[in-house]
Amino acid sequence: MYQLNENYQKLPGSYLFSTIAKKVAAFTEANPDKPIIRLGIGDVTQPIIPAVIQALHKAVDEMAYADSFRGYAPDLGYDFLRSAIAEHDYRQRGCDITADEIFVSDGAKSDSSSIQEIFSVDCKIAVTDPVYPVYVDSNVMAGRCGEYDSSSQMWSNVIYMPCVRENGFVPEFPKETPDLIYLCLPNNPTGTTITKSQLQAWVDYANAHGCVIIYDGAYEAYIAEADVAHSIYECAGAKNCAVEIRSFSKNAGFTGVRLGFTVVPKELKCAGVSLHTMWARRHGTKYNGAPYIIQRAGEAVYSGEGKAQLKEQIAYYMKNASAIKTGLKEAGYEVYGGVNAPYIWLKTPHAMSSWEFFDEMLEKANVVGTPGSGFGPSGEGYFRLTAFGSYENTVAALERIRQL
Amino acid sequence: MYQLNENYQKLPGSYLFSTIAKKVAAFTEANPDKPIIRLGIGDVTQPIIPAVIQALHKAVDEMAYADSFRGYAPDLGYDFLRSAIAEHDYRQRGCDITADEIFVSDGAKSDSSSIQEIFSVDCKIAVTDPVYPVYVDSNVMAGRCGEYDSSSQMWSNVIYMPCVRENGFVPEFPKETPDLIYLCLPNNPTGTTITKSQLQAWVDYANAHGCVIIYDGAYEAYIAEADVAHSIYECAGAKNCAVEIRSFSKNAGFTGVRLGFTVVPKELKCAGVSLHTMWARRHGTKYNGAPYIIQRAGEAVYSGEGKAQLKEQIAYYMKNASAIKTGLKEAGYEVYGGVNAPYIWLKTPHAMSSWEFFDEMLEKANVVGTPGSGFGPSGEGYFRLTAFGSYENTVAALERIRQL
Repeated sequence: MYQLNENYQKLPGSYLFSTIAKKVAAFTEANPDKPIIRLGIGDVTQPIIPAVIQALHKAVDEMAYADSFRGYAPDLGYDFLRSAIAEHDYRQRGCDITADEIFVSDGAKSDSSSIQEIFSVDCKIAVTDPVYPVYVDSNVMAGRCGEYDSSSQMWSNVIYMPCVRENGFVPEFPKETPDLIYLCLPNNPTGTTITKSQLQAWVDYANAHGCVIIYDGAYEAYIAEADVAHSIYECAGAKNCAVEIRSFSKNAGFTGVRLGFTVVPKELKCAGVSLHTMWARRHGTKYNGAPYIIQRAGEAVYSGEGKAQLKEQIAYYMKNASAIKTGLKEAGYEVYGGVNAPYIWLKTPHAMSSWEFFDEMLEKANVVGTPGSGFGPSGEGYFRLTAFGSYENTVAALERIRQL
Repeated sequence: MYQLNENYQKLPGSYLFSTIAKKVAAFTEANPDKPIIRLGIGDVTQPIIPAVIQALHKAVDEMAYADSFRGYAPDLGYDFLRSAIAEHDYRQRGCDITADEIFVSDGAKSDSSSIQEIFSVDCKIAVTDPVYPVYVDSNVMAGRCGEYDSSSQMWSNVIYMPCVRENGFVPEFPKETPDLIYLCLPNNPTGTTITKSQLQAWVDYANAHGCVIIYDGAYEAYIAEADVAHSIYECAGAKNCAVEIRSFSKNAGFTGVRLGFTVVPKELKCAGVSLHTMWARRHGTKYNGAPYIIQRAGEAVYSGEGKAQLKEQIAYYMKNASAIKTGLKEAGYEVYGGVNAPYIWLKTPHAMSSWEFFDEMLEKANVVGTPGSGFGPSGEGYFRLTAFGSYENTVAALERIRQL
C-alpha cells in the first residue's frame, strides 16, 4: 500500500483569508446597507498598461500563422526577455548579472516555493517574522521545519527573526547559524525595508557563515529612498551567497498574467557544485517555460513607453499609500511602511489583538484589512492595509477610519 | 555550511537531444547543400486555431480596462474552464468527474513531475520502458530511485515494465508490487496504446494491490479506435486509484501557450487522507494559477467552432502519421504506433542499434528522428518519428527514406 508525504499533515489549516472571508460575508449579510471597502489582499486593481496590451495582441497574432507560430519555449526563457531583464534590472544598476543567469518563470510564488528543492533536507531555514507564508509552508512540505506548536505558532526547526517596532523592523543576526535565509525586501507584510549597508551586512554574514540568502525582491519597483538597494547584487559578494527572486506582479500588474524570474549567479557554488546548473536541471525536468505571448508582455515592460506608463501606475498606488499613511497618522495611529512598499503596517491601539482590531474596523468603519498575526507570531498587535485599491475607495476608507 | 540535494548529482547528463543537436550541426556544416528534415522532436508546427486566437484577443482586451481586469486567478483554475473540461472531457464520455476535481495548471510536464511530491519518499515507482524521462527524473530528484547503473541504464529502485514488440507494447504486471504506477496512454514514445479492457485490468490491479496510477493522457485527442479509453475514469473503480494528467499541448497546439490540468477524484484516499485536499494544498502553496488569458484560450478549445477547427488540425497530423506508417511499411520497415498517436515507432533493421540507425538516416536520407534508446533500455533497437511536421516535409522525408 502506497503512503503519503506525511509532512503535509503537519501543516495547520490555512485559515487567515478564509476566516476573513467568512467574517466579511457574515457582516455583509447582517448589514446589507453598509458597503465594504477591501484593503486586505495584495492584489492589484489597475489595468494592464497599453504598451503591454499592444505586445500581447502582437504576440497572439504571431501564434495564428505557421511562419511566426512558436511551439515549446526555451526552458529557461526566451533570450529577448532574459536580455532585457539583465540590461534594465541589473546592468543599468551596476550589477554584473548576465542574461544566462536569469531563469524566467510563471511567477515568484512558484520560484520561492520551489527553490528549496535544490538544497538538502537537512538545511535549517531562517525567516523574518512576520513573513509571507509560502517560504515556511514549502519547507514544511519538504520536511525541514520539525513540528508545529499551535500555542507559540512556531515550528520547532525554524529560526524566527522578529521584525517589530522595537528593532525598527530590521532583522537581527540569529544566535543559531541557519543554512538558508529568506529575506523579502521591501517587506511583505510590514511594508518596511532596510538600507543598502544593512543588506551588505547580511551578505557578509551569509558569506562568513556559509549560508544562502533567498532574496525576494517582488516589491522592488516601489522603492523610493536612495539608500535602499534595488537588488541584492548591489552588495559586494552577493553573487557568492544569494539567489534573487523577482516578479512582474506588482511592478506591472501581472498578478493574473503570471511572470517572474529568478537569478542564480554562476559563482554560487557549494563544494564545487553549481547551483545554477542544478536550478537549470530543475527547470528542464519540471517546467516547460512561460508562455511565449506572456514573455513578449514582459519584454514590453522594459520598453520606453512601458517604463513611462508603469511609472505612472506605481505613482498611483504610492499616492494611495501616502494617503493611508497620512490619514492614519492624523487619526492618531502608529504607522509603518508605505514609503518603499505598497503596504502599510499599523500598530493596533489600546493593546488590541490583531483580530480584535480587524473586527472593529469591519464593524465600525466597514473596512477590511489583514490581521498581522496571520503572518506569524511577531505580527500580533499589527494590522496590514494595502495601497492596491482605487484612489476613491482608499480615500473613502480613510475618511471612515478617521470618524471612528 | 549549507548542503545541496544530493539526489540531483545522481542524475546522468541529459544527453539525448543535445547529442542529436550536435550530430545534426556537424552534418549540416559538412554538407551545407543537403537540407535536413526534422521529424524528431514532439513539438507541434501548425498555428493556433482561429477560435482560440479570437478568445486570446478578447481576453487581452479585458485586461486593458479596470472594469474587466483580472488579478490573481483562483489557485485551482477559473470555474468557466474547469466546468468546460468536466463537461466535454468527462461527462460527455460518461465519466463522473466534477469541475472541482479538476486542477488547472501550466501543463502536463509541471504536473507529472510534481505529483510525486504528495507521496512518501518511501514509495516505489513503476514505469513502462521506454518512457517519457520526466517521470523517473522527478522521482530521482526526490530520492526515490536508488542508484543509477550506467551499463544497464536502470535505477536500482525503479520497477521497469518493458513494452516491446514481443508483448505487443502492453506492459505486464510487475513481479514486485509498486506503490505508484506511471502509465502514458496513448504512449510517448512508442505511439502504441492498450484497449479499454486491458486498462481496466490495470485499474483492478491497482485497487487490489494498493497502488496509485499516475495516468498521463496527453495524446488522448489522437485516439481513433473505438475500444481505446479516452480517460482512465471510463474504467470502473478508477476514481479510487488513479490521478489523470492532461494537456492542451497536443490536442490544441498549446506547446508554447502552456495549459494543462490534473484530475484528482475526491474518492482517492489513503488511510482516510484525501489526495484531492493534498493536491489543493500543494497548488495553494506553490502555484498561483494559470494566466487568465490562457484559461480563456483553453475554454475556446471546447466551443463548437474550436472543436471543429481542432478536428481538422488533428486530422492533418494523423494524415502525416498515416503517410509515415504506410511509406515505411512499403519500404520494408517494421512499424508500430501512428494509429491512436502522433508517434511512429520503428524497429531498426539488420539489428542496428538506435544510434547506428540515427546516423544512417541522418547521413543517407538527411532525416532526423529520435533514437529509441534515449527513452530507456527497452527502447534500444527502435527509432521514433513524429507526425508533427508539415505534410510537405513529411512526404519528402518518406521519399528520401524509400530511396535508401
